Amino acid sequence: MILPRPVSFAGGGGEVGFDGAVHVSRVGGPAEGYRLSITRDGVRIRASDDAGEFYARQTLRQLSGPAAFRAVPPDRVVLPVCEVEDHPRFGWRGVMLDVARHFLPKPDLLRYVDLLAAHKLNVLHLHLTDDQGWRFESLRFPRLHEVGGWRADSRFGDRRSGGMAGRPHGGYYTQDDLREVVAYAARRHIAVVPEIDVPGHSQAAVAAYPHLGAHGGGVWTDWGVNPNVLRPDESTVDFYRQVFDEVLDVFPGEVIGLGGDEAEGGAAEGGDGWFVRRIAQHLHQRGRRPFGWDEVLDAGPLPTRTVIASWRGEDPGLTASERGHDVVMCPEEHLYLDYRQSDDPREPVPVGTVTTLEDVYRYEPPDWVLGAQANVWTEHLDSPRRLDYAAFPRLSAFAEVVWSPAGRDVAEFRTRLAEHHLPRLDALGVEYRPLDGPRPWQELPGVPGFPR
Amino acid sequence: MILPRPVSFAGGGGEVGFDGAVHVSRVGGPAEGYRLSITRDGVRIRASDDAGEFYARQTLRQLSGPAAFRAVPPDRVVLPVCEVEDHPRFGWRGVMLDVARHFLPKPDLLRYVDLLAAHKLNVLHLHLTDDQGWRFESLRFPRLHEVGGWRADSRFGDRRSGGMAGRPHGGYYTQDDLREVVAYAARRHIAVVPEIDVPGHSQAAVAAYPHLGAHGGGVWTDWGVNPNVLRPDESTVDFYRQVFDEVLDVFPGEVIGLGGDEAEGGAAEGGDGWFVRRIAQHLHQRGRRPFGWDEVLDAGPLPTRTVIASWRGEDPGLTASERGHDVVMCPEEHLYLDYRQSDDPREPVPVGTVTTLEDVYRYEPPDWVLGAQANVWTEHLDSPRRLDYAAFPRLSAFAEVVWSPAGRDVAEFRTRLAEHHLPRLDALGVEYRPLDGPRPWQELPGVPGFPR
Repeated sequence: MILPRPVSFAGGGGEVGFDGAVHVSRVGGPAEGYRLSITRDGVRIRASDDAGEFYARQTLRQLSGPAAFRAVPPDRVVLPVCEVEDHPRFGWRGVMLDVARHFLPKPDLLRYVDLLAAHKLNVLHLHLTDDQGWRFESLRFPRLHEVGGWRADSRFGDRRSGGMAGRPHGGYYTQDDLREVVAYAARRHIAVVPEIDVPGHSQAAVAAYPHLGAHGGGVWTDWGVNPNVLRPDESTVDFYRQVFDEVLDVFPGEVIGLGGDEAEGGAAEGGDGWFVRRIAQHLHQRGRRPFGWDEVLDAGPLPTRTVIASWRGEDPGLTASERGHDVVMCPEEHLYLDYRQSDDPREPVPVGTVTTLEDVYRYEPPDWVLGAQANVWTEHLDSPRRLDYAAFPRLSAFAEVVWSPAGRDVAEFRTRLAEHHLPRLDALGVEYRPLDGPRPWQELPGVPGFPR
Repeated sequence: MILPRPVSFAGGGGEVGFDGAVHVSRVGGPAEGYRLSITRDGVRIRASDDAGEFYARQTLRQLSGPAAFRAVPPDRVVLPVCEVEDHPRFGWRGVMLDVARHFLPKPDLLRYVDLLAAHKLNVLHLHLTDDQGWRFESLRFPRLHEVGGWRADSRFGDRRSGGMAGRPHGGYYTQDDLREVVAYAARRHIAVVPEIDVPGHSQAAVAAYPHLGAHGGGVWTDWGVNPNVLRPDESTVDFYRQVFDEVLDVFPGEVIGLGGDEAEGGAAEGGDGWFVRRIAQHLHQRGRRPFGWDEVLDAGPLPTRTVIASWRGEDPGLTASERGHDVVMCPEEHLYLDYRQSDDPREPVPVGTVTTLEDVYRYEPPDWVLGAQANVWTEHLDSPRRLDYAAFPRLSAFAEVVWSPAGRDVAEFRTRLAEHHLPRLDALGVEYRPLDGPRPWQELPGVPGFPR
């Protein structure tokens, strides 16, 4: 009944009442690991570290029944007598949330931290900037969030045939908001990885400070790959060094994202690759690890400590590894959770390839990677409700991909999900996609997608 | 700096560090009252009752600074040395949320419970059903939430000139969800008052069970007063008795709303008033207090224990009181928070009369009422973000209207709000209307309202 499936579970000894008392101790063992013993004598956690204890408590909550996931959980529950031994397969178990295309208000972002923790995920990658919006408060350059933080309208559906939504959209996080998210996540053993995307996907910044761009233009109201990138010169590098220094001040974690996706190559001086290299060097000099989408492999030599997110399949990850980089796998054909969940015509705004629950579940990362992450792009997810629909239950499947031992059984997972885990999501108020397709109000008839 | 303003505050003795240790005792005093003493010897609460202690802790949190309202509050803060004596002016300090016109997902509803508690409000009136949606899970009549729980589209803006939103809308609360909300609210000393609106505003129910209505039709996609009301006959009364029995099973509180607004009169047998009387009698027989909008005064004799919500000004409340009813004031010209907040042309979907922050603040309920409530209708508030905009900071002003002693000073309030309370709302992630008008992304240019 536990999700993600633990390394081992031995039950069958009946049930025992539980009022919350737990005996906790630290023992040697694999990082983030724990042993949970539920006997007639009580509940005992032996954890390798703080994270292991935290995950043991998550398991205990799952064993307590769905009501344990409500805002007022029961005082007393019945637990199965059992012995659980557990630790994660990968150290990077991530989710990227695109809060740039559609802003996710802070209370909803905190809720997602809770949802990640309940799934034993431990990295929250925040895509904070893009052509369509800048979500990071800058004290040095306030027009970034004041001007770049909103757009006048949005395409509603695919760019080739969709109309406009007819409403402005915007929002940004203050630095205090983000410090709060970092602290809240840290208590749940989740590292927050910010991303300021350069040199492409930057029109919101250019709208705020036109000298940053080769061409002008407002915050983009359309979707797709925008050819208007940052002007790759020293003054722009200097500007972004200052922006990143503000980011580093808010995010104490080791890994800092610089994007680098979907811009032209140009590794020579004054090219886009040159720009990426300069920013990566700056982060490296500040003692952090740059983190970029796999296009940055074309930028020329990067600090070896740079982490590569391999999204165009696994091949770029292999190349990166050969060059000595750590790799996070996020191949789009398995782990892009904005892609349509089925070929059911009722699927709202169907884009990308069909990526079913099973497609996510069947993804098998190679053992030599840091880990993997699911990416949730939000062009077509304009509210927390739509985000829930796209993310769940596929994110539950992903959690098992990165936590549980290899050799998983799709049918067994599906049964466990339906019988035990979806009721937990119901209790949490997660508006996931039902296994048999969308609820009527989750459809968006007439809003065009662009299925591949 | 405290909001709502307490009965008395004596400060000026410097500051003292605080690590969370509080000495609490019970003393005699007015209901929900407390005395909070912050001295160099420590923090002491003397409360009349549990609610009084809870409110003392809310005051303490306010004195701790805005960061105390974040999800990870500081461990240690500095408090002013002071003595606060406090109790509420009225026993019914309510907010009505219309979750029928636009569904408010459960996590957001729980967040509103927290926001009410932070303002020392103690009644959450949930308008659970209307022409445009049925939000209460019925085990006996599941088509109520399955069919009545969503609509194919919604008017976007005023019905006379607005287009359609082009997307379906829906959602409902399970009975377990609502029990959770009730329990969560109870821990915060908030009573939840459910409302099933009869015999008008019932087209969602008619869509689910056509025999309930004089005419057929689907869940309504428009706004306004719908002439299609319930068929006032014995079989419909019997159906609704069963529905209300389910409601009573979920909501243990004394007061249960039956609506009764904006339907034709007809107190004779088989008229709308007759229908209201029959439902009121049923609730009375079940030991509850019926609660209706002031139109129910035309229904003929109701149980004296019926509580009347006076929304068409205060006169209906006066009439109700003369007939022996308890009254909750919610005159639309002061307390309808969907009405436009200014005559600024940037105000999104301007409807109703101008109801500024000061208009709310200046409302003075007569001393003989149970209390008052602010009503937040949601035809034009289609997301929690828009709800925040409409509700705040006017709800902060309302909290002071019902809690604080009469004789309030608007200028002093406005300064206290701006300097001390808005930073708390910022920390809570409330997207309130800034005092100088909407942020660009809070506007809805081109979406028509209908200002009065």
